[in-house]
Amino acid sequence: MKNIPHRLILTEEQMPKQWYNLRADMKSLPDPMLNPGTLKPIQTEELYPIFCEDLAKQEMDSTTPYFDIPEEILDVYRAYRPSPLCRAYALEKYLDTPAKIYYKFEGSNTSGSHKLNSAVAQVYYAKKQGLTGLTTETGAGQWGTALAEACSYFGMDLDVFMVKASYNQKPYRKAIIQTFGANVVASPSDTTQVGRAILEMDPDTTGSLGCAISEAIEKAVSTPNRRYVLGSVLNQVLLHQSIIGLESKKAMELLGEYPDIVIGCAGGGSNLGGLIAPFMQDKLLGKKNPYFIAVEPASCPSLTRGRYAYDFCDTGKVTPLAKMYTLGSGFIPSANHAGGLRYHGMSPIISKLYHDGYIDEARSAEQTKVFDAAVQFAKLETILPAPESAHAIRCAIDEAVKCKETGEEKTILFGLTGTGYFDMAAYTAYLEHTMTDYIPTDEDLKPGFDSLPTIPGIQEQ
Amino acid sequence: MKNIPHRLILTEEQMPKQWYNLRADMKSLPDPMLNPGTLKPIQTEELYPIFCEDLAKQEMDSTTPYFDIPEEILDVYRAYRPSPLCRAYALEKYLDTPAKIYYKFEGSNTSGSHKLNSAVAQVYYAKKQGLTGLTTETGAGQWGTALAEACSYFGMDLDVFMVKASYNQKPYRKAIIQTFGANVVASPSDTTQVGRAILEMDPDTTGSLGCAISEAIEKAVSTPNRRYVLGSVLNQVLLHQSIIGLESKKAMELLGEYPDIVIGCAGGGSNLGGLIAPFMQDKLLGKKNPYFIAVEPASCPSLTRGRYAYDFCDTGKVTPLAKMYTLGSGFIPSANHAGGLRYHGMSPIISKLYHDGYIDEARSAEQTKVFDAAVQFAKLETILPAPESAHAIRCAIDEAVKCKETGEEKTILFGLTGTGYFDMAAYTAYLEHTMTDYIPTDEDLKPGFDSLPTIPGIQEQ
Repeated sequence: MKNIPHRLILTEEQMPKQWYNLRADMKSLPDPMLNPGTLKPIQTEELYPIFCEDLAKQEMDSTTPYFDIPEEILDVYRAYRPSPLCRAYALEKYLDTPAKIYYKFEGSNTSGSHKLNSAVAQVYYAKKQGLTGLTTETGAGQWGTALAEACSYFGMDLDVFMVKASYNQKPYRKAIIQTFGANVVASPSDTTQVGRAILEMDPDTTGSLGCAISEAIEKAVSTPNRRYVLGSVLNQVLLHQSIIGLESKKAMELLGEYPDIVIGCAGGGSNLGGLIAPFMQDKLLGKKNPYFIAVEPASCPSLTRGRYAYDFCDTGKVTPLAKMYTLGSGFIPSANHAGGLRYHGMSPIISKLYHDGYIDEARSAEQTKVFDAAVQFAKLETILPAPESAHAIRCAIDEAVKCKETGEEKTILFGLTGTGYFDMAAYTAYLEHTMTDYIPTDEDLKPGFDSLPTIPGIQEQ
Repeated sequence: MKNIPHRLILTEEQMPKQWYNLRADMKSLPDPMLNPGTLKPIQTEELYPIFCEDLAKQEMDSTTPYFDIPEEILDVYRAYRPSPLCRAYALEKYLDTPAKIYYKFEGSNTSGSHKLNSAVAQVYYAKKQGLTGLTTETGAGQWGTALAEACSYFGMDLDVFMVKASYNQKPYRKAIIQTFGANVVASPSDTTQVGRAILEMDPDTTGSLGCAISEAIEKAVSTPNRRYVLGSVLNQVLLHQSIIGLESKKAMELLGEYPDIVIGCAGGGSNLGGLIAPFMQDKLLGKKNPYFIAVEPASCPSLTRGRYAYDFCDTGKVTPLAKMYTLGSGFIPSANHAGGLRYHGMSPIISKLYHDGYIDEARSAEQTKVFDAAVQFAKLETILPAPESAHAIRCAIDEAVKCKETGEEKTILFGLTGTGYFDMAAYTAYLEHTMTDYIPTDEDLKPGFDSLPTIPGIQEQ
């Protein structure tokens, strides 16, 4: 038997030098984004007021399969990448499963998650264009931390609109973003028109990601030399995150392994899209047939219970319209602890792959079950997972237990996107049995679906 | 010029399989520990009620140069080791220094620090002896987390006496220890005689490490099949931590490098002793002459202002007497944020090496200056350091700046012992300019020195 190490970390030379653009190999592409004013397919130039030009081009490019990673970005990647591919020996032994469980661990950087991979790229291109600042939103705070880190490194101003619920519940998350020099604003705020309008309607609202996005975009387009950046959902983000999958695949090749099952948690889809990218390429090209599973919270079930429809990416309805699985931009997610998965929509690329059957399965998990898995994993694998990541752990454990029942020696790969250091309030709630599960009824989902836009000739209510 | 990577991580095969025992190469050994009752040099067997037998033997063994690391311990090490040796390219560039700055990063495990290296070893040997539980104390909480992790892995009960100040200020640190299944008690507590006695004298005390040690020992010796473990100071801990230095030296050899200066923060001395171990061997054997610097907080200056004397390791005066640099077991450290460095004494090995001139320099740093360095480092190197670790960063930056002035191309190695995720209250105080420095006056130090024991014929007051 081959001697497989607990952790395989590629050398700096082995680190991929290009990102992979999944769209280039998709036989059927996601439907085009629409201009919210004209309802016509959006042109690259129309994105320039929001995104810097290189990123707008990456967003719209469905044909270039590989993008060279600029040396300046590689230079930052090298401070924390390649990330380890780990073999969960202790977990396998505990489960007494014939399955082999691998995980790609993206938490070994200060942002504590995979978010830094795209943050570094987005800040670099903005800097290259001569911009002086960026705006963004953050929910759980991982994206805000990652972007603050990247802005601090490249010397860019940053305004972070932080969902008010997180702002109040996670003072230390706010503090770390501030440590990297960013300006943190609780959203909704009175610093934007859209924020003031939302506050007027509901002064006690604790905000949402969709609302924070609206504020961040307004701030970007109304401030000179400033653009908006987003940490998930977008095509460009999935492109940057492909480094996760490319490293994973190369490391598994060195071990003589290939996954039968690839599992990722799914909020906006950035980690899932990045992890599966090169394996999905194999499937699209008919070379291999791995089984892909997306795992989302039962409280915010966009893939499992949402509609595949055109929708806004934000509550304020200022973004382009994207065709995606969505609960409707009017859906207000419950206070699930996995803040990073609390978003009404899903990456258009992921949505299309799921709709066309290339992503084999979407599964939802209740949060107490997710924390069962998180604590079990922490005790055995000595890494405290982020609640988001623990959705993938839950599924990996379930699949490994199935293998025990069937005797199948499957190779499972899942994405361990980050660490849970800033989620101890949630862990405490779990330990003290005050954590509850929430599964929305069909009635609960109705207002969200009712908020879906009507687009003459394309989409009726 | 050789192409030196940002991070060099040894392979699993390259990871050292033995610990190195510095005492075996010391020409002059630390003075023997004394039995607090008889005031005679303590015998190994006398330690058995407190420590498990294998650890008691390691504690007393001054002659065996190398100890094989048991396979069961290597198995856990492999989940997070080898740890990276990093080149601080961004910091060097920012400082515009000709110095080369390397750091050994020990924060990439859930305990967030180097403490796990010894925790795993100590729990393993206790388990091997058939014990069922352990007790310990924790100040900042890193040791408590590491030990809880190790106990959870090996299936051992654990009582953690957590200094009350930390218990109240760091609910999330407590929560992570509990997540790993340990029982956390605020110290002083009413669960021990010594705790009750201290509370009777001062009901409002927020505790100290020395007091928590007394409680943990009492609990261990009064409970069947239970022993006490300590995360620093002891010879056995420095032995286990030698893995840090051994990996660092091997990695530097692969790069064709050798440090001119080695810098470690110093609380009880475990990280410093582990980091310098193989380099100190070179110095003891006359092969090389690296310059060693220990950095401690100005608020708790055991090396720079303490006495080299026999003292108790705890406030309750139940431990053996050790010859070390000490501020006196009656010294109550101020609420410096670097909780892990807030201890009245210093490892007897480190103390002896410093006393004999093998450790070239001890330096103290004020905490605002330490946080200046921490934030600068975080922004450039994208790792948020623990306040303890930042003492070493402060010194490394100062040495690199000196190199700029003199033009010397020195090679600097420092220990980055851990991450600061649970220290955001301190970072916030720094950012909001409410953090203050405290340097004790000679008057402030007097009660501590007055508490030093009198040992007829050996030590007078």
